[in-house]
Amino acid sequence: MNVPLTPIRFLRYAEEQFPKKEAIVCRNERYTYAQFAERAGRLAGALRKIGVESGDRVAFLSVNCHRLLEAYYGVLEAGAVLLPLNVRLAAAELTYILRDASPKVLLFEKVFLPIVDAFRAQVPIEKFVLMDEQPGSSWLLPNSYEDLIAAASPHRADLMQVDENSIAEMFYTSGTSANPKGVMLSHRNIYLHGLNGCLTFDATREHVHLHTIPLFHANGWGSAHSITMVGGKHVMIQKWDCGEMFRLIERERVTGCALVPTMAIALVNSPEIGKHDLSSLQRINIGGAASSPTLVREVEEKFGCICYAGYGLTETSPVLTIAISKPGCEWEGDDRYRKQAMTGYAMPGTELRVVDANDNDVPHDGRTIGEVVARGDGVMMGYWNQPEATAQAMRNGWLHTGDLASMDENGYLLIVDRKKDIIISGGENISSLEIEKTLAAHPAVYEVAVIPVPDEKWGETPKALVIRKPETEVTERELIDFCASRIAHYKCPRSVEFLSSLPKTGTGKILKRELREKYWKQGTIRPEMAVEGKK
Amino acid sequence: MNVPLTPIRFLRYAEEQFPKKEAIVCRNERYTYAQFAERAGRLAGALRKIGVESGDRVAFLSVNCHRLLEAYYGVLEAGAVLLPLNVRLAAAELTYILRDASPKVLLFEKVFLPIVDAFRAQVPIEKFVLMDEQPGSSWLLPNSYEDLIAAASPHRADLMQVDENSIAEMFYTSGTSANPKGVMLSHRNIYLHGLNGCLTFDATREHVHLHTIPLFHANGWGSAHSITMVGGKHVMIQKWDCGEMFRLIERERVTGCALVPTMAIALVNSPEIGKHDLSSLQRINIGGAASSPTLVREVEEKFGCICYAGYGLTETSPVLTIAISKPGCEWEGDDRYRKQAMTGYAMPGTELRVVDANDNDVPHDGRTIGEVVARGDGVMMGYWNQPEATAQAMRNGWLHTGDLASMDENGYLLIVDRKKDIIISGGENISSLEIEKTLAAHPAVYEVAVIPVPDEKWGETPKALVIRKPETEVTERELIDFCASRIAHYKCPRSVEFLSSLPKTGTGKILKRELREKYWKQGTIRPEMAVEGKK
Repeated sequence: MNVPLTPIRFLRYAEEQFPKKEAIVCRNERYTYAQFAERAGRLAGALRKIGVESGDRVAFLSVNCHRLLEAYYGVLEAGAVLLPLNVRLAAAELTYILRDASPKVLLFEKVFLPIVDAFRAQVPIEKFVLMDEQPGSSWLLPNSYEDLIAAASPHRADLMQVDENSIAEMFYTSGTSANPKGVMLSHRNIYLHGLNGCLTFDATREHVHLHTIPLFHANGWGSAHSITMVGGKHVMIQKWDCGEMFRLIERERVTGCALVPTMAIALVNSPEIGKHDLSSLQRINIGGAASSPTLVREVEEKFGCICYAGYGLTETSPVLTIAISKPGCEWEGDDRYRKQAMTGYAMPGTELRVVDANDNDVPHDGRTIGEVVARGDGVMMGYWNQPEATAQAMRNGWLHTGDLASMDENGYLLIVDRKKDIIISGGENISSLEIEKTLAAHPAVYEVAVIPVPDEKWGETPKALVIRKPETEVTERELIDFCASRIAHYKCPRSVEFLSSLPKTGTGKILKRELREKYWKQGTIRPEMAVEGKK
Repeated sequence: MNVPLTPIRFLRYAEEQFPKKEAIVCRNERYTYAQFAERAGRLAGALRKIGVESGDRVAFLSVNCHRLLEAYYGVLEAGAVLLPLNVRLAAAELTYILRDASPKVLLFEKVFLPIVDAFRAQVPIEKFVLMDEQPGSSWLLPNSYEDLIAAASPHRADLMQVDENSIAEMFYTSGTSANPKGVMLSHRNIYLHGLNGCLTFDATREHVHLHTIPLFHANGWGSAHSITMVGGKHVMIQKWDCGEMFRLIERERVTGCALVPTMAIALVNSPEIGKHDLSSLQRINIGGAASSPTLVREVEEKFGCICYAGYGLTETSPVLTIAISKPGCEWEGDDRYRKQAMTGYAMPGTELRVVDANDNDVPHDGRTIGEVVARGDGVMMGYWNQPEATAQAMRNGWLHTGDLASMDENGYLLIVDRKKDIIISGGENISSLEIEKTLAAHPAVYEVAVIPVPDEKWGETPKALVIRKPETEVTERELIDFCASRIAHYKCPRSVEFLSSLPKTGTGKILKRELREKYWKQGTIRPEMAVEGKK
């Protein structure tokens, strides 16, 4: 008997088995799994009622809230495809995505009205629904989200008729090197990734997950499935800041969350950290960008829980690795922080290799660099309407990630850079991440980004852009000397510039592309820019 | 990207990620995951070399040992179908199964030579291989298992070419009511059941599993997959007895195992229990037959770990339920023992219903009895060469288990009997299991089976067959009165007979069919015998 593999089963199982269990906390609202499933079913009914048909895309412009989480199941119960949009994108970027994906409906929060007004005439969307309007007071449509679901009957997909190889969710890559591409994830991708995620993160019924990362982002959406599967509790956070996060951990007895490094840096440096009871925390997973041993240690010490890195891509549902010790590889002392800040080893259901330009494995010596390629249950179906880009990314049966890494004898990866961020100086590959990690260990450094700048003799050389911690002093010379005493001379930054902030994506990743532009824009073409990274 | 779901991936993942981790302990031999995978690969090569082709069945007549565990992966790497045989069956039963399944090869241990000699002329097997002969000294064939794998090159299946919907394993039902039927489990069945099993039993890398149940039995084989998946340790036990079990728990720091009730009864009554360090134990799962609150409490108290029941079938890969508390249903005090001795709730990946004769759900009131039906990832493909029996069992899209149960408002099942074991007295359904549980709570009762016996007035009435604990005294009258003070009068046994042993299957299940025969054989036909149970 083959029961289709679809995330629809996760919420149905939780509804059947844990109906009275608290499922979602959002602001001051609380929902049990029975209520969560009832509302998701009504959303499905409402979508069908306003004309959504099987295979239609349904887009969301929303920060984390219980309604967006309901959509993760309700849109699928309606037979449609979930398309969560990054709320930090500009109107032009959203226009491009919405024309490409052509969703039938857009659901959005009132705060995004100005941006919706800016693109609505240029996109082929049939219906707009306001998510956070009070019932009866809606503005664009006769009904708001709450009005619609109150008037609808629950609609459930016929489980046995779901095609597990049809698209369930679509997310757009951040498009740092080209136009954003729509990543098609099948029901089967999402289901198996959810199960593998439960194993990877030891998710249990006691888990209370704080959704610190936006659900529209790779690092955020996996937990929407695995936490539901085990009957854990979802705690939503709308606008992330340190104080709100500490308050929610204390109030809801949060056991785990994911962070990007910039969030973790802000948290460990927050003066509020000592004022809250954080003893419920068990695990913090750092992803989205490279971490450092210093940061991992600080998080562990200040939060009193284990902290480790992980790695994934929009194209892989997203998780690929986890940086914890595994059977047969136990770590001691400071080595533990170093290893937990690495990229980690392949999660269950995933195979990872590091290959040279001919797709041959590089030696597992922890030094030789190649491109990470992946095969596994979470690897996407392909890019929406882009068969050539799909074939290029998935060549030889493996997804080519565009990330450069080494692999050690125990199967642990270390990402050294994105293909396009690697610095090539006098023919030597220099990892910007390695320099950043080195500088992050300096007591006066709050945050740092290393980029290549043009150099007549070497082609390019590394430059560090640094934010200092408040009330600390450090000079360019001191930081360069600090590096010279720790890493090879040719890898040291040739210059350091002090900034008061770094440009970031909606999910807190540093926008190196933007930082580079200032130095490369005078007609100089970076040779690496021709190397097409995947995202 | 769809990577085929096959248990082959479990051992490959463990080999890749945990090569140096100790995987198997068998007698005084120890193997790492690298060695386990190497030997499984060589077994695949050896099988191909002696003519095994894709889809061929490869049968095993073996108690638990590392070679049988290797076969769980090696046979599949060869593209063949694993067919483990119950070693307690008689020659005639094995002949029937081997003619039905027509395996190309039989691998067996020397101790089973007399039985192999008894059927070998009547079965279409091409090759016989002795499993436990020392290299170079083999008897039936030029080579023994060890000779064969030493001479073979490892063979690996092309993972992406495996058909996840082809048969991976075949097991025969015990055939208590008809000829045994071959249950076909697909690669996908086994893979998903393995993942769901990891979630159900919180399997982690630290798990040390003692294989107390024969791997050829439903209750035993699931752990061959889930423990491998997480990189736990397999500890093999050849001939189960209390002393050997205590010694292995102490020596290997065993964390979990499965027991059938008769084994659990023997263990808690063993005089050796206080002489060993059992502190590593975390979980004991009782399955294969109904448990009792008394037994669950005794196991917990004497082993110092959690003990709970579970339920499954050969047809369901096998696990369907686990009797632990779930989110939203916490138990306190003695209620915990009662609930943990129940059948439990549906494991992840599984839906269970209790239905009436028209396949309509009975009320979830904890009282109304119906038949258990199941839908899920572990439900078999069907019975080998029996399309009609398959269609009958899988009618309306659900597997009909032949087990009668009630379901409470929280989704917990309580099996009241096999369809064929229920006692119908004066039109009332009486659960033999309920009477057995009641009598099991009497301090002088070691073990008990309740069966229907003919009665002129009532059609049939319950009779208890009891083994007394050593050095205790109790009379028939006292036991009937004990029941009368605890359960309804019409349910009380009308007679009690004291025996010194009860007939059991190879896996410790009491053979009620055999017990009944004595009372029904004089031409009296039990009306229930016409009700065809599934197994």
